[in-house]
Amino acid sequence: GNSVLSSYGTTIFEVMSRLAETHKAVNLGQGFPDGNGPADLVAEATRYLDTGWNQYPSMMGLPTLRQAVAEHARRFYGLDVDWASEVMVTSGATEALAACLFGLLEPGDEVVLFQPLYDSYVPIIRRAGAVPRFVSLRAPDWSFDPDELRAAFGPRTKLVLINNPLNPAAKVWGWEELSTLAELVQEHDCLAVCDEVYEHLVFDGRPHIPLMALPGMRDRTLRIGSAGKTFSLTGWKVGYVTGAPRLLQPVAKAHQFLTFTTPPNLQHAVAFGLRKDDAYFHGLAADMQAKRDRLTAGLRAAGLTVLPAQGTYFVTADIGHTGLGEGDTEFCKRLTAEAGVTAIPVSAFFDQDPPGNLIRFCFCKKDETLDEACRRLEGWF
Amino acid sequence: GNSVLSSYGTTIFEVMSRLAETHKAVNLGQGFPDGNGPADLVAEATRYLDTGWNQYPSMMGLPTLRQAVAEHARRFYGLDVDWASEVMVTSGATEALAACLFGLLEPGDEVVLFQPLYDSYVPIIRRAGAVPRFVSLRAPDWSFDPDELRAAFGPRTKLVLINNPLNPAAKVWGWEELSTLAELVQEHDCLAVCDEVYEHLVFDGRPHIPLMALPGMRDRTLRIGSAGKTFSLTGWKVGYVTGAPRLLQPVAKAHQFLTFTTPPNLQHAVAFGLRKDDAYFHGLAADMQAKRDRLTAGLRAAGLTVLPAQGTYFVTADIGHTGLGEGDTEFCKRLTAEAGVTAIPVSAFFDQDPPGNLIRFCFCKKDETLDEACRRLEGWF
Ligand SMILES: CSCCC(=O)C(=O)O
Ligand SMILES: CSCCC(=O)C(=O)O
Repeated sequence: GNSVLSSYGTTIFEVMSRLAETHKAVNLGQGFPDGNGPADLVAEATRYLDTGWNQYPSMMGLPTLRQAVAEHARRFYGLDVDWASEVMVTSGATEALAACLFGLLEPGDEVVLFQPLYDSYVPIIRRAGAVPRFVSLRAPDWSFDPDELRAAFGPRTKLVLINNPLNPAAKVWGWEELSTLAELVQEHDCLAVCDEVYEHLVFDGRPHIPLMALPGMRDRTLRIGSAGKTFSLTGWKVGYVTGAPRLLQPVAKAHQFLTFTTPPNLQHAVAFGLRKDDAYFHGLAADMQAKRDRLTAGLRAAGLTVLPAQGTYFVTADIGHTGLGEGDTEFCKRLTAEAGVTAIPVSAFFDQDPPGNLIRFCFCKKDETLDEACRRLEGWF
Repeated sequence: GNSVLSSYGTTIFEVMSRLAETHKAVNLGQGFPDGNGPADLVAEATRYLDTGWNQYPSMMGLPTLRQAVAEHARRFYGLDVDWASEVMVTSGATEALAACLFGLLEPGDEVVLFQPLYDSYVPIIRRAGAVPRFVSLRAPDWSFDPDELRAAFGPRTKLVLINNPLNPAAKVWGWEELSTLAELVQEHDCLAVCDEVYEHLVFDGRPHIPLMALPGMRDRTLRIGSAGKTFSLTGWKVGYVTGAPRLLQPVAKAHQFLTFTTPPNLQHAVAFGLRKDDAYFHGLAADMQAKRDRLTAGLRAAGLTVLPAQGTYFVTADIGHTGLGEGDTEFCKRLTAEAGVTAIPVSAFFDQDPPGNLIRFCFCKKDETLDEACRRLEGWF
């Protein structure tokens, strides 16, 4: 097998979900809801399966979905997007990321990215022949040192890759941090790829600010969104990339040979979803915020130290004080087997210098699921 | 953009489908049916959307589909496949190919492949850092010179990639040719990746022989299949890879970071489809054979020279004698604009030394569509 990819194990999300099944644990590991998505989206997908077009759509995606992505960007962020030249549909955000990285990077290029990070970023960057340059975000506030960021840029920097809101840290990037980043990107004449799949999962009235909306960044940024997280249908695997034609065109060259296209009935239903009124999106965030609060309270009642969470599906707990000093991965395995609750070790989101004291719990679950997990944890600790 | 991928244009299938739309031409270019797939598969997909699991399935695919793929390989080819360690589901055969190539190849490796070839093969091989070595198949019988094949293998050969049945040549590989290939693969201790998406579209009572079924090849071969062509639902994008664990594992490492997974409702329906009785599969081949005959007769009546077609969705016509010597691509554009019928230039399937006199027509269409295309062609010539 290829030496870069073979050096990585099976993705931690899969490993922990399989372990949860084995132990019949409450799975608060991998980030997916434990119910179905909105009934009206499901009905649209169903109707289209029966009466619509189940053959290859255009490789760029159904026009109605590309239009809906552009309208959504204008409605929520005031971004002016030309659907016909600036939006491409992909088979989930994972494929969108792979298409951006394979399509833009040249062997030897450098990519600036922040730890913790989603586990597909580094393997794909390295498989694309490029070199990652890491900047650390440090708990509990997950801020960075601007000097460390500046030092990560250099003459070979091609792009910076960020996840905003950030999984697993539940950090929502603020204007000032984004400005620092935007200045460096422009100073070094490079690009940004922004994985914004949690864009609507932002809490406490905080805004989500796309890096693309910052001065000078409109035509240097590719923005990735996904239906999975926005409509609680993670299995549908419908993603989208938005960006200036000169950036999107090379990404489309990769996409056409990675998957070529995405099931039209799901694209159609997602287009319907993106056109829902503001109440849907606010309701989603409010529901998720309530779940964050419910899980946080339950974990604290069980004796865990829980870090603040500004967005995403996730809260992080500090297990340092529990004295179970075997490291976060072993701890998560024990928790699954003994307490019957599955979490994800945060070290899995680090390429270098992983912390050993943090584990991630997912709260996009039914209230009874969250309550059962907390009961089990309270019993075990 | 990346220099390898940027050197390729937009895939010819997309280009010609868009041109067909512009000119309201009968589109016999891109290979997709112009009706819906089997109603029972659509009903299964629908039912599962409503009542099933629309969140992330396992990255290897739904067990029921992996089991169905293994059962299908036993039923049709006598292959003994362990579904749990030897089958992976992908987001279409295009992703399966990308996962095989990115997952197995190391920069500098060589890949032996036959022209004509599907247009994603070479860009992905080169983007993976590997080097293509071409062997020519020559019309009208699309046979190869065994010495040329032998000369293409060398110390750096990692794998051979074939498409059987072969698009656009409509060639079904015979036992003798496959044996020659199998011997060379074993002599050079390398692997085979077989794109067999047209496995059920084989005519005139000919058998489809998977290279994997040849002596010594069971554990050196990855076999790719796809629901799109087997169930006339090309937009569903459900593919599968079968192979020995030591081959499949590195491919899974690529898959988990390319798309991670595939919509579960479509996987479920495809599992149902693969379990249909033999009559379905024979009926599909018989229908398609009748369409091949209908289009062949119509093209001949219009004055075209049509090559024999043993399988796939396609027939090839020789335009050499028409004296319209502007090359196959220009000819296809003129045909679309002036005759109102779209075909694909066969030169698009060649990396080196393309022929200029062959164009491909797709016959997986309603009879009235085929008849209308032939009427238009007869009027134009
Ligand atoms: C592709 S599985 C991972 C799902 C997810 O985003 C997470 O759990 O972090
Ligand atoms: C992925 S679009 C190409 C469809 C096809 O297999 C063909 O037309 O050859």
